[in-house]
Amino acid sequence: MIRTYSRKIHYYECDSMGITHHSNYIRFMEEARVDMMDQLGYGYERMEAEGVLSPVMAVSCQYKHPSRFQETLDIQVSVKSLTDLKVGFSYVMKVGDSLVCTAESAHCFLRGQRPVSLRKEFPLLYQSLQEMLPPALG
Amino acid sequence: MIRTYSRKIHYYECDSMGITHHSNYIRFMEEARVDMMDQLGYGYERMEAEGVLSPVMAVSCQYKHPSRFQETLDIQVSVKSLTDLKVGFSYVMKVGDSLVCTAESAHCFLRGQRPVSLRKEFPLLYQSLQEMLPPALG
Amino acid sequence: MIRTYSRKIHYYECDSMGITHHSNYIRFMEEARVDMMDQLGYGYERMEAEGVLSPVMAVSCQYKHPSRFQETLDIQVSVKSLTDLKVGFSYVMKVGDSLVCTAESAHCFLRGQRPVSLRKEFPLLYQSLQEMLPPALG
Amino acid sequence: MIRTYSRKIHYYECDSMGITHHSNYIRFMEEARVDMMDQLGYGYERMEAEGVLSPVMAVSCQYKHPSRFQETLDIQVSVKSLTDLKVGFSYVMKVGDSLVCTAESAHCFLRGQRPVSLRKEFPLLYQSLQEMLPPALG
Repeated sequence: MIRTYSRKIHYYECDSMGITHHSNYIRFMEEARVDMMDQLGYGYERMEAEGVLSPVMAVSCQYKHPSRFQETLDIQVSVKSLTDLKVGFSYVMKVGDSLVCTAESAHCFLRGQRPVSLRKEFPLLYQSLQEMLPPALG
Repeated sequence: MIRTYSRKIHYYECDSMGITHHSNYIRFMEEARVDMMDQLGYGYERMEAEGVLSPVMAVSCQYKHPSRFQETLDIQVSVKSLTDLKVGFSYVMKVGDSLVCTAESAHCFLRGQRPVSLRKEFPLLYQSLQEMLPPALG
Repeated sequence: MIRTYSRKIHYYECDSMGITHHSNYIRFMEEARVDMMDQLGYGYERMEAEGVLSPVMAVSCQYKHPSRFQETLDIQVSVKSLTDLKVGFSYVMKVGDSLVCTAESAHCFLRGQRPVSLRKEFPLLYQSLQEMLPPALG
Repeated sequence: MIRTYSRKIHYYECDSMGITHHSNYIRFMEEARVDMMDQLGYGYERMEAEGVLSPVMAVSCQYKHPSRFQETLDIQVSVKSLTDLKVGFSYVMKVGDSLVCTAESAHCFLRGQRPVSLRKEFPLLYQSLQEMLPPALG
């Protein structure tokens, strides 16, 4: 089970409405994703040492309720979809019990310009991600 | 017809891969949207003077090709959907002829906590947005 | 004694040279300052509830050694100077034993547009800050 | 003579006080510096093609008056000091006639880890910068 990623909202992340600027949640998703990959044992340094980059192919975010300066945002990341070449994550962000936003991101893996098959080249990571898929899709 | 919004990519907007960090496109969407509302005669100051805020309800972005430091990004904003209470924009971002990303955003309008009917309170803006809808939906 | 403020460097905070972009240290100074004021019992919410804002009058930063993605930056804040109307902080930022940068900031306190005398209106905060001054200046 | 660099303030650059967050001026300094180096014919691409990086050694900024969303900030860059190995710039930032801030930055030039002598390796750039020094120091 992946531990929830938590972080406080900084003053410079809030806009003139006194709420976290919506663009920052895209950054928080990256923080939570990096933390999750670390927990799985495939942190950025390891992937980079393997010559593998993981560009973002798409993001989306649905804003439900604002968060504010000094509040603690809890982010739970899940695996939403998985193929040999592509992984999709979903995110639930909360302040306490209050839902702040839901979000998704899609990623591929590249060595130079060439797509990397997660299943062949990182079978243990592939398996970990597969086990995180929701039961109906697993 | 809304003029394309253009802006150069700054050094501090690029990441360790030497490309524009994906989160920044969400900010560029806001820049282009502000510019479009100005062109329609309903700039931020005017809406604020009317006591109306326009929070972002959702964003999504599909990344096709990276952009880089000092490249000029051209952003074309269109109206994708429109109801009394909600407007959806779509964005096409290019560097020269090269497609960088496509994106969407959805917005409502609030006075205090109360939703504002665009059609009733800002009929001229509503009409301008309606005329920008793609023909099949107009 | 004020606890050192620690935080990890995020991927989106690094630039094309693969190091933390220099502008971000100005933001880290704010994070550390907010944390210090919280430790002194005069957090942002309390000052805001008193109607007091504390704008930044000046900052400076001397960069000694880069920091990188996922490194933990430790920031020690000290009081450098103090008058009725103005406080100066200094910052030492390290990754492990390696000095990353030294920095300073100056702040006043305003209620509306009027300067606030720290010594008169917040005597306990003034005293705490005074006790943090280096001995020769105390 | 170097042309003034101008740019509008974006919504996402403003904080909860409704003013440009102080950290962003450090980024605007970079924008203006990049523009000045382009005007001198030594843009980033050219320096990079020569294998030369120009890290920031120090910055400072004195905030005089806030700037706000949609205001146009004009930045005038000058050469403040120059040695074989190091250049210092100063910046005056205004909105209309109103002084927003003054600032300084110091830079060296590196090829790999080795300092580059501007005077020896880029004599035309060195001469251009020298001619921009204030008369008393020229």
